[in-house]
Amino acid sequence: MITEFDFIKKYLSSKEKNSKYSLNFNDDVGLVDGKIYSTDTICEDIHFFSNDRPNLIAKKLIRVNVSDIVSKGVKPKYCLFNFSIGKNIDENWISNFMRGLRSDIQFFKLNLIGGDTTKTLDKTVLSLTIFGNLINDKFVRRSSAKSSDYIYVSGTIGDSALGLYCKKKEKVNILKKHKEFLLNRYLKPTPRIDLFNYINKNASASTDVSDGLYSDLSNICRTSNLGADIDFNAIPLSNSAKAIISKYPKLNKLILNGGDDYELLFTGKDGLDRNKNITKIGKMKKGYNINIADFNDITDLDGYKHKF
Amino acid sequence: MITEFDFIKKYLSSKEKNSKYSLNFNDDVGLVDGKIYSTDTICEDIHFFSNDRPNLIAKKLIRVNVSDIVSKGVKPKYCLFNFSIGKNIDENWISNFMRGLRSDIQFFKLNLIGGDTTKTLDKTVLSLTIFGNLINDKFVRRSSAKSSDYIYVSGTIGDSALGLYCKKKEKVNILKKHKEFLLNRYLKPTPRIDLFNYINKNASASTDVSDGLYSDLSNICRTSNLGADIDFNAIPLSNSAKAIISKYPKLNKLILNGGDDYELLFTGKDGLDRNKNITKIGKMKKGYNINIADFNDITDLDGYKHKF
Repeated sequence: MITEFDFIKKYLSSKEKNSKYSLNFNDDVGLVDGKIYSTDTICEDIHFFSNDRPNLIAKKLIRVNVSDIVSKGVKPKYCLFNFSIGKNIDENWISNFMRGLRSDIQFFKLNLIGGDTTKTLDKTVLSLTIFGNLINDKFVRRSSAKSSDYIYVSGTIGDSALGLYCKKKEKVNILKKHKEFLLNRYLKPTPRIDLFNYINKNASASTDVSDGLYSDLSNICRTSNLGADIDFNAIPLSNSAKAIISKYPKLNKLILNGGDDYELLFTGKDGLDRNKNITKIGKMKKGYNINIADFNDITDLDGYKHKF
Repeated sequence: MITEFDFIKKYLSSKEKNSKYSLNFNDDVGLVDGKIYSTDTICEDIHFFSNDRPNLIAKKLIRVNVSDIVSKGVKPKYCLFNFSIGKNIDENWISNFMRGLRSDIQFFKLNLIGGDTTKTLDKTVLSLTIFGNLINDKFVRRSSAKSSDYIYVSGTIGDSALGLYCKKKEKVNILKKHKEFLLNRYLKPTPRIDLFNYINKNASASTDVSDGLYSDLSNICRTSNLGADIDFNAIPLSNSAKAIISKYPKLNKLILNGGDDYELLFTGKDGLDRNKNITKIGKMKKGYNINIADFNDITDLDGYKHKF
């Protein structure tokens, strides 16, 4: 499977790659007349499962998109929804799904301004396009980290991938409350809408943790032409993540590899971890590599395939 | 299968239905800060076939979306692309597809500002979200026809559906040049980018012919709270459409039912058919029904299910 980075490099002409509106495809948003645009698709049996609760699938669709905009220091405000309805879906499913969608549209104060409904011959495919207005003419790019910046994350990292692991494996021998916490983090991500203003004011570069911490940090490094040193032990873990990793130590690579956290990964000056939701995990540097202190098996990492 | 109209009525809350940004869902575009937005999805084996040429599939995706914006009297300018890649697709397919996409992006002077690529477990699903700036603060709604208005279409109607018929049936006994003309109209629609200014200046209400003339006229009638009289014999047909219908008279219902023409259907004052691309086909009226002179079997019509 071709990566999105390779896809853009290979198939988009230099005209598109050098467009101010696409931000030269160095970011995963576009910029037109003071608004930031993003779009994300989730597919049945890839990004969600047929037996997940439909209202949670809807919330996931909204939240992965909200997270993209929030990570740019912008408040999402408008969206369009493409609903490609698979063969396993009945009226009851649609009704539950739309209840979840409407509830999250209200929660995040979004305006649904358009969409398209169609059927597919097999699986369900859901796309949302989302946009919002710059704040004081400003948003935060992925490509603008400086070599003197520190690296921060919000919340706790890895929960979602560990939750997915619990869902896939029948026997995971940890306390039920931990399993439920992790699974809930996977099924119902909480994008950091509480932090878009903070990011707008304080971050020098920013992205959300959607592909996995290592891969998303690689994107900041690649687009900023920098390297990074991070401290594995500094990465903030939930008690539930600590519990499952102490039992199954090999799962620690999911902290770096596991996607779908929808927390924020950003760079900025020293001291931003005075905000209680934010943890310092490392420092940017000149060069082209990411060094991870206290983590041995770097070749295990998915993001490692990103060549600089 | 639920219609889009029923879907909106049933599953969107009154809050979304009464939003100025969504135009109360009376149109298939949204309006935010002087820009018109639309989005359309095409699915493998529903809207295109696995063995269609990939570059033509890409052009179809662009063109159905361009048509939506053009029909509002607006020039499309920006787009985002969701590429959900099915299992039958290889690098060669992607390469040909992207060649077609880039070629049409250039042809229609669009800016690709973002997108998402993902894989699906089965079929390919393609979405485009497209937008453009109002001209002199104006665009043309679907809901603003007046009872004294005349009804017009651009180009010729029915070619695309007749082309699809030729593609599906092995033996259609008409001249090869007619078959090729119709098939080409199906595979490579030509949205009326040449007419967006004309529509902006002259149309009182407008839509494109995507679901079929009858169904799209029903939408103008329903949202404008009016009825219409049209003359079947006045509907402009290509020589190729005339040729196949004179051989297979029952296909004449495809003129009214067949979708994917991507011509324009609009209303306005008398005399707009002085433009050589435009034909008058009828007149709006008070009431709630559509009467079609010289066409007998109205119960055959797909759009007939639209209750007023």
